[in-house]
Amino acid sequence: MFLKNCWYVAAWDHELLDGRMLPRTILEEGVLLYKAESGKVVALRDRCCHRGVPLHLGRREGDCVRCMYHGLKFDSTGKCIQIPGQDTIPAKLGVKSYPVVERDHLVWIWMGDPAQADPADIVDFPYLRDPQWKGVPDYMHYDANWMLIVDNLSDFAHLAFVHTRTLGGSEEYAYVTKPVAVERLDNGFRVERWHMNAAPPPFHRKVLPAGEKDTKVDRRNIGHMQVPGIFFLESMFSPAGSGSEKGNREGTREYRNCQFMTPETRRSTHFFWTYLNNYEGDDHNISRSLHQSLIEGFMEDKHLIEAQQKEIDADPSFELQMVAADAALSHFRRTFDKHLAAERAAQATGKAATTIAIAPHSAGVGA
Amino acid sequence: MFLKNCWYVAAWDHELLDGRMLPRTILEEGVLLYKAESGKVVALRDRCCHRGVPLHLGRREGDCVRCMYHGLKFDSTGKCIQIPGQDTIPAKLGVKSYPVVERDHLVWIWMGDPAQADPADIVDFPYLRDPQWKGVPDYMHYDANWMLIVDNLSDFAHLAFVHTRTLGGSEEYAYVTKPVAVERLDNGFRVERWHMNAAPPPFHRKVLPAGEKDTKVDRRNIGHMQVPGIFFLESMFSPAGSGSEKGNREGTREYRNCQFMTPETRRSTHFFWTYLNNYEGDDHNISRSLHQSLIEGFMEDKHLIEAQQKEIDADPSFELQMVAADAALSHFRRTFDKHLAAERAAQATGKAATTIAIAPHSAGVGA
Amino acid sequence: MFLKNCWYVAAWDHELLDGRMLPRTILEEGVLLYKAESGKVVALRDRCCHRGVPLHLGRREGDCVRCMYHGLKFDSTGKCIQIPGQDTIPAKLGVKSYPVVERDHLVWIWMGDPAQADPADIVDFPYLRDPQWKGVPDYMHYDANWMLIVDNLSDFAHLAFVHTRTLGGSEEYAYVTKPVAVERLDNGFRVERWHMNAAPPPFHRKVLPAGEKDTKVDRRNIGHMQVPGIFFLESMFSPAGSGSEKGNREGTREYRNCQFMTPETRRSTHFFWTYLNNYEGDDHNISRSLHQSLIEGFMEDKHLIEAQQKEIDADPSFELQMVAADAALSHFRRTFDKHLAAERAAQATGKAATTIAIAPHSAGVGA
Repeated sequence: MFLKNCWYVAAWDHELLDGRMLPRTILEEGVLLYKAESGKVVALRDRCCHRGVPLHLGRREGDCVRCMYHGLKFDSTGKCIQIPGQDTIPAKLGVKSYPVVERDHLVWIWMGDPAQADPADIVDFPYLRDPQWKGVPDYMHYDANWMLIVDNLSDFAHLAFVHTRTLGGSEEYAYVTKPVAVERLDNGFRVERWHMNAAPPPFHRKVLPAGEKDTKVDRRNIGHMQVPGIFFLESMFSPAGSGSEKGNREGTREYRNCQFMTPETRRSTHFFWTYLNNYEGDDHNISRSLHQSLIEGFMEDKHLIEAQQKEIDADPSFELQMVAADAALSHFRRTFDKHLAAERAAQATGKAATTIAIAPHSAGVGA
Repeated sequence: MFLKNCWYVAAWDHELLDGRMLPRTILEEGVLLYKAESGKVVALRDRCCHRGVPLHLGRREGDCVRCMYHGLKFDSTGKCIQIPGQDTIPAKLGVKSYPVVERDHLVWIWMGDPAQADPADIVDFPYLRDPQWKGVPDYMHYDANWMLIVDNLSDFAHLAFVHTRTLGGSEEYAYVTKPVAVERLDNGFRVERWHMNAAPPPFHRKVLPAGEKDTKVDRRNIGHMQVPGIFFLESMFSPAGSGSEKGNREGTREYRNCQFMTPETRRSTHFFWTYLNNYEGDDHNISRSLHQSLIEGFMEDKHLIEAQQKEIDADPSFELQMVAADAALSHFRRTFDKHLAAERAAQATGKAATTIAIAPHSAGVGA
Repeated sequence: MFLKNCWYVAAWDHELLDGRMLPRTILEEGVLLYKAESGKVVALRDRCCHRGVPLHLGRREGDCVRCMYHGLKFDSTGKCIQIPGQDTIPAKLGVKSYPVVERDHLVWIWMGDPAQADPADIVDFPYLRDPQWKGVPDYMHYDANWMLIVDNLSDFAHLAFVHTRTLGGSEEYAYVTKPVAVERLDNGFRVERWHMNAAPPPFHRKVLPAGEKDTKVDRRNIGHMQVPGIFFLESMFSPAGSGSEKGNREGTREYRNCQFMTPETRRSTHFFWTYLNNYEGDDHNISRSLHQSLIEGFMEDKHLIEAQQKEIDADPSFELQMVAADAALSHFRRTFDKHLAAERAAQATGKAATTIAIAPHSAGVGA
């Protein structure tokens, strides 16, 4: 049900400030995350091997963690290195540890076979480290399977109905625009959509200078979704008729948005995101306004998606019906299933699934 | 477990005022109810066929409803008539619709085979449309199987212990009175019980003129229960010794009560009811007082019945022991099982269960 | 899963004051406890045999209880002795009753075969009836299997980490002390542990006279655990170096603590306890302070133990790893399993498990 041999976002780096012991369930395993005194991030199975007490109820000691039930101490590799009142420690006593990588403010975790964990496979979103691009990183919890969020992001048409008064702007968006292209990729899809000569949608209008609020815009969205559930979105608003579709960028405002869906359980998801702009300069209120608008928009999605999950739970026999706009979504589900099947086949034969492993991809999806 | 080919009360008409989109689970199916612009009541499966989002989160448009996820529009028969951004619509795309009939302020729904839905089969309770009979229609939700509520109504003896200080009046009621008759019917039962020369029970005493409050009464209850869970109750209070048992109606006050039990799930029930009197004239406070008294009484039942359900859930092996007073209750359970078996047999052979279908019955159970 | 043929604590006597109808689930059976007018404690299956309504919603009448649904009345043996409106009562109609014994402020119940219930088998803790020993009896509810609480009490080392600032005093306790002896008994274990020349732990320091608060102490704990989950603890604090380990009791303060774990369900436990001291004289504030300190300490345990239960529920395949300090715990689990197997074997052959029945034991575990 889950792809295990791939990198998932486990946390934003700011969630581990000040030595915080962060318990987080990922792919239905309880994981403890903390930043060791040495500065590296540690991820351990959040369950003492002795009596099962969660380690996040324990105490960080340097790079180690001590269970505060009977005092067993584990190093950053999960090995038990002290049992109070006992002189020898069985060599194998310990808890599972997970490969983790901290990069560009994200903490990535590898839940599968550690031998296959290669940091070079971590997907790159360069805007996260570019000081010109600014935004407020945030987290949201969904009571829904991550794939339902992937579905949601696969079709911009939902902007028209779900987000009319927030991120979308008008129902017209669903009727008069269509994807320019849906690119089917080995590990996801890329979709581009233009909407010409329309009023700026509410979230964008809020951050525009007074004189521009009523100027029509040409709007481009490019979405790029990757297995297991990583989404990059580039949005561009140009003055209507300025020829941005031919490459003219004058007067254009752009956004870069990333969304990372990490399954908590089969019915719940960690959702990490940030929405970046490249034009605020020192006016942090632009980031703040966009942050608030996006939360508003995501709450609209969350309301529907969690309702969807309840319907599916209530009647597992229900078969979703496809419409034409589901092309990207359908391709993604097939792609994911292919990766999952390959992982299982490799597991069965004892070999790593090297042929169609999830390759690193630049987030430069258009630009 | 549920009888499907019969009419259930789905709502009071006032629940659909002002175009309200009413989601209501009936026989474990999510149903959306609304009054179309044309005035007719529409009942659709409350789940978009596309991605499973509940339609009650959508928008009514004339007689139609639009899912507000991707904008699919459904007419009052459930047929999909618009997909934004898509020119052709598969002919079969749509959601299930249910036969509904609005009559005497009740909305009836047919959850089974639509071909068998005949409005002539809807049970008639003429007092609901007689302007002389007044009351406040209401709704209550039970966390219990509807049959436990049917059980409760099958034996007036519980008035003595459950409702001593509300609807009953004295424990004596259980000791000195007995049913005059328990009539076993093909689709339920009819039971009549007299209680002579007693103080008026609290709910009735509250609405009596000051001078009558301490006058003893002869009291008659006639209950009529019908499959699947429809209960009519006629109550009469006459001056003690006035000969009402011989037909003298002088100084008599009467009530007509209907209660409709519609399964929400196997563990929860929609309970629609009203308690009518024919003597208040323009004094609406009599209806209001009776309404309050009945809620008090029903809460006493609900407390016990929901506790019963929990006991049954906790130990499904528990076998209820019968006592003599359970004659009506036992007959009803047998009757219901017979109807259920007939429906299943008909389903198996592909024919409608015409022989013992639930025939319409007048509520004139005594009078 | 539960041992049935043994005595469990069902209540403190003060829980049944003023005729209170106390519902309490024990070994997953709903039991009603009340003190009859005759003074004896009655324990009945808390479920009317007629329609399943809990009897604790009924009314006590003398030694009897009446179900307040249809009025059936049951005597203190559970026999139905009245059905309102019905002349004859089936001889076998009734609810199950349980052997109960009230002794030393505890109400003991026997959930198994009544024929085997011998009050002589009730374990004796003489301090409960000795007026010199004073304390505040109390109750706590755990959302955890009782055996996890037994585990907790099996090793004093947890005092060091869980209760450092309440009952323990220092982490050093886990490092420098060891059990003097772990005695393996047929129905449990007995463990003794000394900790010399240490500051008095916080709970004890609070009740010491000002001049003694900083005097070092020699501390002895003796624990005695018995099947199914009965724990006696003797604690002694002597002036450091006074020779209490050689029998000198001068300046010594002692405590007697009992804890009774009664399974509510396989995932929850009734926990009855009192912590007695023999030196407060008329200063009830000593009992009150100890009572508060113990609650503080138990809440620390409860927090961890309930977290343990959640881990075990989330992953039933998890295998606890043993350390050296688990000797007593492991012996107890084996002992319990032996008793359980014997009970089942006896049940299968229809004979009582007389050979290794739980014999009464004096709580005089050291002194």
